[in-house]
Amino acid sequence: MTTPRRDTYTPDSLLQVAVQVFNERGYDGTSMEHLAKAAGISKSSIYHHVSGKEELLRRAVSRALEGLFGILDEPPAREGRAADRLEYVVRRMVEVLIAELPYVTLLLRVRGNTGTERWALERRREFDHRVAELLKNAAAEGDVRGDVEVRLATRLVFGMINSIVEWYRPDGRTGARREVADAVVQLVLTGLRG
Amino acid sequence: MTTPRRDTYTPDSLLQVAVQVFNERGYDGTSMEHLAKAAGISKSSIYHHVSGKEELLRRAVSRALEGLFGILDEPPAREGRAADRLEYVVRRMVEVLIAELPYVTLLLRVRGNTGTERWALERRREFDHRVAELLKNAAAEGDVRGDVEVRLATRLVFGMINSIVEWYRPDGRTGARREVADAVVQLVLTGLRG
Repeated sequence: MTTPRRDTYTPDSLLQVAVQVFNERGYDGTSMEHLAKAAGISKSSIYHHVSGKEELLRRAVSRALEGLFGILDEPPAREGRAADRLEYVVRRMVEVLIAELPYVTLLLRVRGNTGTERWALERRREFDHRVAELLKNAAAEGDVRGDVEVRLATRLVFGMINSIVEWYRPDGRTGARREVADAVVQLVLTGLRG
Repeated sequence: MTTPRRDTYTPDSLLQVAVQVFNERGYDGTSMEHLAKAAGISKSSIYHHVSGKEELLRRAVSRALEGLFGILDEPPAREGRAADRLEYVVRRMVEVLIAELPYVTLLLRVRGNTGTERWALERRREFDHRVAELLKNAAAEGDVRGDVEVRLATRLVFGMINSIVEWYRPDGRTGARREVADAVVQLVLTGLRG
């Protein structure tokens, strides 16, 4: 047993610990005991910050979703030809995924067993749909090859981008953030432009 | 309780049931009881066919690995320019992944807790390495852009292909096998050729 240390957590630092435990044990497999032990504080100290583990999940996936949806509000994602906007969004998706790696990892592993998880899945589908729309518009503007079906291409592009959470290491061994973003854009956008 | 039915399993049909249960519950989370219940036969009937669940895992991942390594022995994977061989291998990887979907899904989810799992991971790395070599040779022959680092490109291409197990449905709603293979080749090989 470790002696609980004095609770010096902020909502953000507690969230950071919780996300790490969720990613290691799975959300379903994590109890408030696991969280208290990992944080080194008592369960009642955690309840001082949040109502329970579902609130921690909601905050964590919200952070990932805000990062992703925020991209769509940035001017280069809103102005210009759809193919250029798509290229910008794909690059920024890689950057946000790497900058918010544990939060996006958790978002991508959500299963749908609780209300919060189902809400997160619904928001993810909405984001995918927004990116698919960009691809559709780029094809309509003639900048993207027409022989790959939009939903299929979207799935494959998301598959490539989302796979980054499985192998990316922040220590730089797997490439700098910029290098990974460049590679995805070069592979996928060149392929899409045909 | 279901009454155990008469054991009419062959090694192949028992394997099919086991792989489905492994994919649903995870290999670690599957007991011989779970397998017996899913097969509708007794545990001792299963032991008549195999020595235990690790043997079933070994047979299942072997089937996936044989499918994948078999590609590398096919003539178009061995003859001609590296970029053309790479294109052939990428297309066939998608086809094998879809043809052997549950077996490849299981292979991709292996964690490394048992000897069989560590062996499977080692074989996967070997396969990845063989494909990375093709990509390196294609770059050396000047058919593939030199500005994307080989290991990074390999990871991204495998990320796209492996993601197919997450969303492909055999009912055709997500595209025919041929259509998915065409899309991957068009996206990735055009991107790589630069």
